[in-house]
Amino acid sequence: MVDKVYISETGDYEGREVLLEGWLYNKRSSGKLRFLLVRDGTDIIQCVVFKGDVTEQTFEIADKIQQEASCRIIGTVKKDDRSPLGYELQVKEMEIIASSEDYPITKKEHGVDFLMDHRHLWLRSTRQHAILRIRHEIIRAAREFFDRRDFVLIDTPIFTPNAAEGTTNLFETDYFGSPAYLTQSGQLYGEAAAMAFGKIYCFGPTFRAEKSKTRRHLTEFWMIEPEVAFNDLNDNMVLAEEFVTHIVKSVLKNRKRELDKLERDTTLLEKVEPPFPRLHYKKAAEILKNCEEDFTFGDDFGAPHETLIGEKYEKPVMIHHYPAGVKAFYMKRDPEEPEFALAVDMIAPEGYGEIIGGSQREDDHDVLLGRIREHNLPEEAFQWYLDLRKYGSVPHSGFGLGIERTVSWICGLKHVRETIPFPRLMQRIYP
Amino acid sequence: MVDKVYISETGDYEGREVLLEGWLYNKRSSGKLRFLLVRDGTDIIQCVVFKGDVTEQTFEIADKIQQEASCRIIGTVKKDDRSPLGYELQVKEMEIIASSEDYPITKKEHGVDFLMDHRHLWLRSTRQHAILRIRHEIIRAAREFFDRRDFVLIDTPIFTPNAAEGTTNLFETDYFGSPAYLTQSGQLYGEAAAMAFGKIYCFGPTFRAEKSKTRRHLTEFWMIEPEVAFNDLNDNMVLAEEFVTHIVKSVLKNRKRELDKLERDTTLLEKVEPPFPRLHYKKAAEILKNCEEDFTFGDDFGAPHETLIGEKYEKPVMIHHYPAGVKAFYMKRDPEEPEFALAVDMIAPEGYGEIIGGSQREDDHDVLLGRIREHNLPEEAFQWYLDLRKYGSVPHSGFGLGIERTVSWICGLKHVRETIPFPRLMQRIYP
Repeated sequence: MVDKVYISETGDYEGREVLLEGWLYNKRSSGKLRFLLVRDGTDIIQCVVFKGDVTEQTFEIADKIQQEASCRIIGTVKKDDRSPLGYELQVKEMEIIASSEDYPITKKEHGVDFLMDHRHLWLRSTRQHAILRIRHEIIRAAREFFDRRDFVLIDTPIFTPNAAEGTTNLFETDYFGSPAYLTQSGQLYGEAAAMAFGKIYCFGPTFRAEKSKTRRHLTEFWMIEPEVAFNDLNDNMVLAEEFVTHIVKSVLKNRKRELDKLERDTTLLEKVEPPFPRLHYKKAAEILKNCEEDFTFGDDFGAPHETLIGEKYEKPVMIHHYPAGVKAFYMKRDPEEPEFALAVDMIAPEGYGEIIGGSQREDDHDVLLGRIREHNLPEEAFQWYLDLRKYGSVPHSGFGLGIERTVSWICGLKHVRETIPFPRLMQRIYP
Repeated sequence: MVDKVYISETGDYEGREVLLEGWLYNKRSSGKLRFLLVRDGTDIIQCVVFKGDVTEQTFEIADKIQQEASCRIIGTVKKDDRSPLGYELQVKEMEIIASSEDYPITKKEHGVDFLMDHRHLWLRSTRQHAILRIRHEIIRAAREFFDRRDFVLIDTPIFTPNAAEGTTNLFETDYFGSPAYLTQSGQLYGEAAAMAFGKIYCFGPTFRAEKSKTRRHLTEFWMIEPEVAFNDLNDNMVLAEEFVTHIVKSVLKNRKRELDKLERDTTLLEKVEPPFPRLHYKKAAEILKNCEEDFTFGDDFGAPHETLIGEKYEKPVMIHHYPAGVKAFYMKRDPEEPEFALAVDMIAPEGYGEIIGGSQREDDHDVLLGRIREHNLPEEAFQWYLDLRKYGSVPHSGFGLGIERTVSWICGLKHVRETIPFPRLMQRIYP
């Protein structure tokens, strides 16, 4: 019996007869030859059908097979240095499993909406393969980084009982008669877990009902959030730069082919190495001022500001010490500059904007309670969170890295919509 | 300067002075000695304070420190074969970081509701540590299994536009003016991705608004779902048994201490090895009949039936070929026994019930369309799903493994509520 193999394994079968199962990606003809590019998800192989080698029936199948029809092929693996795979298949027999009439995605240009409507089929293209394999590697490397350092994985809840920071950007659901909200971040729960396990990370989908139609916004996106007891802002920045470095190096090492496929210029990615530049907010504001940007000192940075600052550096840059007023209530303030929060954002180079947001957290019970009251937040909802400051409070810090923005940056994509298999945008929830 | 170390690292510092930061887990006194059990999340170490070795102030701190107060301790690491860690700390200096007045969880027995209300603190107990570290290992091993076999990770969407199988058990949300539902499974999207990547898995939270208060039901739980093109029911069962074996072996190898802590009898876990017994539904029904169980042939199995069948075997058992009527519309039927679906459920031994549900999927466009109509499902919502049968349909199969039930089984827990950091039950969404 002939061995059934994946295309990625054909190199182990040189000179031998194998059975492949897959789909027709593309084909061309030349006299008595038919060249079929067949994909099976692991790779693409050129299958050469020579009229003199096969039955009339097989040649007719090779001649008529349509794009994306599924097929079963028996043939001999031959070395072929011209092909990206290094091997081709000399076909002996071939059959169609199922046809594919008028496959909607053809070689002509399609509009983005059309492709998005056909996302379930668009995923079959080599470009989407490259992006989603890089996404997988980013996620694998991110988990590996924390697993190797003995961080405990804590899956924080998606349903949260209270609209802790207002309901504006929250998705709400009816939870057996009471409202519940979909999480925007696992951080508060991560803090509880850090007090138990010392160093933890959570990693899951998060949700924002923002009415934004920018190229950086999804309503549903994945975030990985470490939280470490006894870490201060500086420790947090060291962790963040080592983490991002590990991710970038893993992709460069394990997904070179996919980066090539995307024609990604990796010059700057190869420079990603600690230390990353660190900028006090004041310094960042000065840069904007020197660029004659329209910016008021004390404000948060918008996407254009981040782009501008990010482009000044070859590596990701960490901006720290934001004005306390523009940052969340739970951030600790610098005792020596109490108008500034011990916050840090990491801005990717090449205009990709913020990929990390983090901070040292307020660890004083009374200060935190005051902050909750100042912000008119529901005190009752924060009882458990305040408990963490009542029973053995310690300095602690953490951050969140957005997966889709990181995929955008590393792949060099203009829009976040291709970074996730089935993107959810304000006006897009199909398929 | 003294090295700051984690307790888990103290073995590398024997005879040396180190700085530890952590929380008081427990203490006892004996004359001029105070024995403090200090935890930092990585482990617990006994810190010995001898009155003659320390200042009066340090001794007083050691004397008065409360459960869960946070502290900083300098001392010398000594080998101690009697302790589980193998080392203890001879204290030289000690300070309190923050106090902990009246920590609510004490050595006395607490009711489950009380502990669940204090889940954010309950996580600090060694039992919860053991369970959640085993959970982490199960998840790590599950991803490792598929990553090593070159499955592509596909994060399927949480928001789905249609209540594909009725709204009864679905959580609904307002998605910018239209209803959207929280996913119950990534499978349908996984099928689209399997046609693109050959072999894929998705892994994320899933939601069921079931009004069940059993010890096996959470409203929010994590599921890992592989889907493989060209796999039939038999391939699917082979994949499932190899997968579960890898998980169990990884936990036995890497989390032995935690299993010991839970006093888990691992006799049966050590027997988990392919092949698992396979039972046709007819055979399983016969077993129930012979046990004089109240069961009607043709019905689905309930939890008591699963328990009964599972207890007959030392390994997980796979029941296949369920009556088509009790299974989902998308399952393919056996051409030779069309009243049975090519479905498989895996039942854990020792009464832990179903941990896996899977099937070969219907791959014929017209049969599937007929099924959708028979079930009165919204045809429009399934256009993209039907497309997968229009453009190069192939046989394919997959399954889903529920993480929390797997944690229950491997840890030997009676109730699923301790298997996830912040459980969501019908009547529990706090903290």
